[in-house]
Amino acid sequence: MKVQVKVPATTANLGPGFDALGLALDLWNEAEFTCTDNKQIRVTIEGEGADKLPADANNAIVDAALRLYDLAGKSCPGLSAHFVNRIPLSSGLGSSSAAMLTGMLGANALLGNPFTDEEILKLAIETEGHPDNVAPAMLGGLVASIVYEDHVVSMRLPARAHHSPLHVTVVMPDFDFPTKQARAILPKQVDRKDAIYNISRAVLVTEALRTGDLDLLGKAMTDALHQPYRLPLIPGAQSAMDAAHHAGAGAVALSGAGPSLIAFSSKPEPGIGQAMKRAFEAAGLAARIFELETSYEGAEVLIV
Amino acid sequence: MKVQVKVPATTANLGPGFDALGLALDLWNEAEFTCTDNKQIRVTIEGEGADKLPADANNAIVDAALRLYDLAGKSCPGLSAHFVNRIPLSSGLGSSSAAMLTGMLGANALLGNPFTDEEILKLAIETEGHPDNVAPAMLGGLVASIVYEDHVVSMRLPARAHHSPLHVTVVMPDFDFPTKQARAILPKQVDRKDAIYNISRAVLVTEALRTGDLDLLGKAMTDALHQPYRLPLIPGAQSAMDAAHHAGAGAVALSGAGPSLIAFSSKPEPGIGQAMKRAFEAAGLAARIFELETSYEGAEVLIV
Repeated sequence: MKVQVKVPATTANLGPGFDALGLALDLWNEAEFTCTDNKQIRVTIEGEGADKLPADANNAIVDAALRLYDLAGKSCPGLSAHFVNRIPLSSGLGSSSAAMLTGMLGANALLGNPFTDEEILKLAIETEGHPDNVAPAMLGGLVASIVYEDHVVSMRLPARAHHSPLHVTVVMPDFDFPTKQARAILPKQVDRKDAIYNISRAVLVTEALRTGDLDLLGKAMTDALHQPYRLPLIPGAQSAMDAAHHAGAGAVALSGAGPSLIAFSSKPEPGIGQAMKRAFEAAGLAARIFELETSYEGAEVLIV
Repeated sequence: MKVQVKVPATTANLGPGFDALGLALDLWNEAEFTCTDNKQIRVTIEGEGADKLPADANNAIVDAALRLYDLAGKSCPGLSAHFVNRIPLSSGLGSSSAAMLTGMLGANALLGNPFTDEEILKLAIETEGHPDNVAPAMLGGLVASIVYEDHVVSMRLPARAHHSPLHVTVVMPDFDFPTKQARAILPKQVDRKDAIYNISRAVLVTEALRTGDLDLLGKAMTDALHQPYRLPLIPGAQSAMDAAHHAGAGAVALSGAGPSLIAFSSKPEPGIGQAMKRAFEAAGLAARIFELETSYEGAEVLIV
């Protein structure tokens, strides 16, 4: 039995929706798992990180898979896996959440689905520590999450129908900005007015993504709680943001905790990515451009 | 020429949507204006506040009407007006915003509409200082507002279709809790985690009101930014909230800055209002119950 798993990239925060909103993107990691009985873990990797990711039990996907075996009270008799990684690592596009889900969903299918999708999501959120990327990667589309009575409630929100998603340009500078550091620099206390600033904007970002109203998205997709602290630490990020607007992007935000930026436009506009890339380059950073769309599909599991 | 104006009650904040969300309720103030040439202001009032509201140029509605004449560069040759007030005063149901809009819309119609509805909304927001109640009173339904480049952008959000609105029980204790005081007691700085708490919940309150999902509304309609400070200052308010939940309300919040509480249920449940009233009475306060529905219509002007 072979199990194929596809998990999408995700972008969290979306400006004002700090630690609240996440959106799936049409960029997919794929994995194929085969259960073997040779007591070996055999992993091959192509694509993003193929040259540096561990190809053994230390691999994050394999680790998540083996954890699921544990949780199911089973031991893995042997595993052969092939990963096709398209989500860049440490980029703010949810690669670690995707790895976690990939492993858990793959192992769950190999085991005959002892856990429901809802339970997998819950396990992945608990392991990751927050739902920001895991929830949209699992559910697809735009997702808001709250903690309610010690449980995470993740709700898929309606977003513009499949036929006409917004276009997304992600530009990823070659800059190490670990999420841990990006969080540590944030103040524990914020001005009440900044909290209010984000509340109303997060509601309107959601509405703009529901209707595809790029003008409203642009007005609402600004933030007072995290971007003002993070952007100055990423060389060129503020000028890349400005450059994106200048090149025609309707709305721009830090993707997750960065270092990537995400720009929205109604159709592909190669000039947006180029302008952002040039801004990072002017600050001494190489940068990669990803032309994407939002995805209303979440993780998929196929048994072949 | 006679002008009739109807303006609905409104409830602001809706728990986590602090200074961001407002909702129109199906409780209306009505006014009839006639332009006269006798240089007199003649006002009659029935209903809420009839015994204490000024019946001359000091009346808030008349004051707003005369201000609009000024803004239009006209002087009022004389005004005869009759007001039917159904929105209780100083209750957290937007009576002062309703008065402002009533006066401005009435005068604008008498003048032949020199200002568009959009301009009237802008003027009313500027005069009131914030859009919380004015915007939903004007637009109807659920409204989110942001300040963008020095202008207020108020957006009417989709809410459950007309045919099946949520039922609303408002209970208003006889307690003086001026908005100014209710604001002054709030800390200027808040925990970042409390800001995040409200952001995601405001998004999900909006979603719950869109779909009529009372269960989601209950999970999302809690707040960390204003209710924890305000509720303890209103005798009986916390126990009235608990009583409402116990009596079957799906979600409960302070209406605006209070002192009224607003409870949501899928159909009228007289026990909810009674239980809340008893809780206020146990704390020594008389209380009035309003059984209402949400309104997807905003202010109306009729020329007769």
